[in-house]
Amino acid sequence: MSASEGRIAEVLQRAEATEEETLRRWFELLRIPSVSAQPQHAKDCQEAAEWVRAQLLELGFQADVLPTDGKPCVLAHHPGPGGDVPHLLYYGHYDVQPPEPLELWTSPPFEPTVVDGPRGKRIVARGAVDNKGQLVAWLGAFRAWHSVTRTMPLRITVLVEGEEEIGSPSLEKVLIAQRARLHADQAVISDTNMWDIATPAITTRLRGLAYVQVNLRAAARDLHSGLYGGSAQNVLNILTRALGGLHDAQGRVQLPGFYDRVRPLPPEQVAEWESLGFNEQAFLAGIGQKEPAGEKGLPALVRLWARPTADINGIWGGYTGSGAKTVIAAEAHAKVSFRLVPDQDPGEVLASFQRFIADRIPPGVTASYESLTAAAAIVVPRESRFVAAAERALREEFGRPPVFIGSGGSVPVVESFKRVLGLDTLLMGFGLEDDQVHSPNEKFELACFLHGMRSHIRLLGHLAQA
Amino acid sequence: MSASEGRIAEVLQRAEATEEETLRRWFELLRIPSVSAQPQHAKDCQEAAEWVRAQLLELGFQADVLPTDGKPCVLAHHPGPGGDVPHLLYYGHYDVQPPEPLELWTSPPFEPTVVDGPRGKRIVARGAVDNKGQLVAWLGAFRAWHSVTRTMPLRITVLVEGEEEIGSPSLEKVLIAQRARLHADQAVISDTNMWDIATPAITTRLRGLAYVQVNLRAAARDLHSGLYGGSAQNVLNILTRALGGLHDAQGRVQLPGFYDRVRPLPPEQVAEWESLGFNEQAFLAGIGQKEPAGEKGLPALVRLWARPTADINGIWGGYTGSGAKTVIAAEAHAKVSFRLVPDQDPGEVLASFQRFIADRIPPGVTASYESLTAAAAIVVPRESRFVAAAERALREEFGRPPVFIGSGGSVPVVESFKRVLGLDTLLMGFGLEDDQVHSPNEKFELACFLHGMRSHIRLLGHLAQA
Repeated sequence: MSASEGRIAEVLQRAEATEEETLRRWFELLRIPSVSAQPQHAKDCQEAAEWVRAQLLELGFQADVLPTDGKPCVLAHHPGPGGDVPHLLYYGHYDVQPPEPLELWTSPPFEPTVVDGPRGKRIVARGAVDNKGQLVAWLGAFRAWHSVTRTMPLRITVLVEGEEEIGSPSLEKVLIAQRARLHADQAVISDTNMWDIATPAITTRLRGLAYVQVNLRAAARDLHSGLYGGSAQNVLNILTRALGGLHDAQGRVQLPGFYDRVRPLPPEQVAEWESLGFNEQAFLAGIGQKEPAGEKGLPALVRLWARPTADINGIWGGYTGSGAKTVIAAEAHAKVSFRLVPDQDPGEVLASFQRFIADRIPPGVTASYESLTAAAAIVVPRESRFVAAAERALREEFGRPPVFIGSGGSVPVVESFKRVLGLDTLLMGFGLEDDQVHSPNEKFELACFLHGMRSHIRLLGHLAQA
Repeated sequence: MSASEGRIAEVLQRAEATEEETLRRWFELLRIPSVSAQPQHAKDCQEAAEWVRAQLLELGFQADVLPTDGKPCVLAHHPGPGGDVPHLLYYGHYDVQPPEPLELWTSPPFEPTVVDGPRGKRIVARGAVDNKGQLVAWLGAFRAWHSVTRTMPLRITVLVEGEEEIGSPSLEKVLIAQRARLHADQAVISDTNMWDIATPAITTRLRGLAYVQVNLRAAARDLHSGLYGGSAQNVLNILTRALGGLHDAQGRVQLPGFYDRVRPLPPEQVAEWESLGFNEQAFLAGIGQKEPAGEKGLPALVRLWARPTADINGIWGGYTGSGAKTVIAAEAHAKVSFRLVPDQDPGEVLASFQRFIADRIPPGVTASYESLTAAAAIVVPRESRFVAAAERALREEFGRPPVFIGSGGSVPVVESFKRVLGLDTLLMGFGLEDDQVHSPNEKFELACFLHGMRSHIRLLGHLAQA
């Protein structure tokens, strides 16, 4: 065992000895209902930011809570041990998705609850994994290193934002304004999944996202369907007819030009993913479904990681209470999002969607739009010393090499880091596909959390030694 | 002037002298928020029923509030002056539609507000016209007769229910159980419109209504659209695709067999309606619309009164809060209704709708249905002494003869009266098309209310004399 390997072992041991304290800290953060989408939780978002800052101050970071036009972010620096060590930018987010529908939770969403599951203990809470648990995993790695060495093994900059779940509207401004303080060699994010509980993964491909709310208005007021039905335009009929045409019978998205920039996947990439042995039937059975959606005739992982989609995320209008109300509504609304693949332009897609709707509404019906997210897809280069160090850390921690996967989700900050800061990002995450992210009873397996913390300890140690 | 004409003049004079008191009584009823669709208003419905009973007791009726499985109804009798006088069954409803959306009301919905409009004073409140105002108009006629003669000019039975706005689920049971007490020669209802403020109308044709809520479920829980988009079924995509196919490009409803029983309208009926000079552009301009919906190539009044329709009255599912939530919802819901014409069977239409949906959902997605209303269309015979008396009353009151019109709306009780009690119904109503029935700022023109009361005074007088 080399000296540095001995040091890593010592830090791992320290992390194990202080596990209870780490959980206590994690649970403190989970108890703060920092829901960025809901204005009533603005104070809680501020509190979560202050909590993160306080943690970093204890570890010798210089740390600030920076106000933005929305929720504040935390920006912190640690100079490391001195000398020519790599400089990492760790990114996370303290905000969480709304917990609704509350009635489907088996325990209160903001009271972390330890549950015995089929794979050992799990922690159930909103944000358990996304992203508070993954964030506390690397904070825990920092703390273990600090506890043993009284410093950090590398130069580390930390950026933790509070608007990831609403599309990071303030992030770009922060990156531009703080460009000098965000200089680093590589970004590191833990906000993705493992392949399965035994197999770690590095994510090298992310879909983009274009998310828009469309509002249709057809009449000056709600109307009685008896008196007006057969003459007045019904905006709910119009909205469903328009959105009902988003896909053809083959599952292909019908926006004009939607696939123009989509390149076919190299056959060797398809083959690599096919070799993972993904079982879509089991994947769907886990959520109570039987038959896959999406484009017909394509392998499941290609559909999930490398093909664009269109989804209605919410729809509402007219009478939604109990009983029968014979109303023809004046307004109708929908939230619609598009998962994008490399080379698709979010702005082009949103413009095409607006034309698609405009072509399907009769004269006198008006449409307005709120663009809520626009982020391009990304491919992360696999050849770098950072990816090599992560590969080694994960192999040592799990006893098997990580697989290189894609993700159907978006981590728009990765695209911003590349574009604004010129930084590539290592995506090393510890979630599982059944973690119920964004759903009731979100959870993080305790084993995944601990593996995550230990993998970050190893990553820092290997990069310090390199 | 004959003796009976003198008597009618005296009663009309009495009504005018006590107008202020009549308005005070009407406003009392409007202040009771008797919303039948909303469980929290159950007590208010009871109170409204008691209010109606108390009015009738003051006029010498024997009157009961009868419990039902839902909201109570009021059943009352007056033996009249004795002798061989006709026996009328007056029907009304004390329940009202939900007032939502509240923010669009210019005054509180349950605080009747007198507003100066272009056609004189109007009363703004939920239920102003539908049906509290029209009901108090005939109660006012009863009171004026009672005040002058200490009795009623005819035998009168009164039935006032509290579930009309939710499809009268208990009414049929009441009609069957109380058949003996509901015996009469003719039913009279004021729940329809005039042709315009100067032209009274008798409605001889009503559309039926089949109203159903459909609930789709696709997954065991809400899903993250990044992790599942492209594989998991999105129930909102499925629901909009299915409902988006309800009409073809010609505006024809696409349920299998929907038009099979629809008979073409006699050309002379079409011609009679065309002679009314209905201005659809102005009708639509009044609600802020430009281009008519409905079946292409048909005259407006035919579409409104004599052709069936399909309308989505409400739709909801997924994330409907502020901001962006990338969720694939587990459940989606819609309220869908069909206006029916004579010979269409509501049960057949609902069954056809269920097949239509079933044909459009993939395996593993489940649909459930709640049938909320099912009433056939009706045609009222024009040749009867009751219609003749009403024609005369309206001609005298307005100085011009009434027109015979259809209505696109449903008064399902008319069909029940015919089927269960063997009774034809005189539909003599005093609403106007711009009364905002079922919408915010519902109103009743004071002139229409007073004409209505006076027309009922005349109707009773002429039938007593006949």
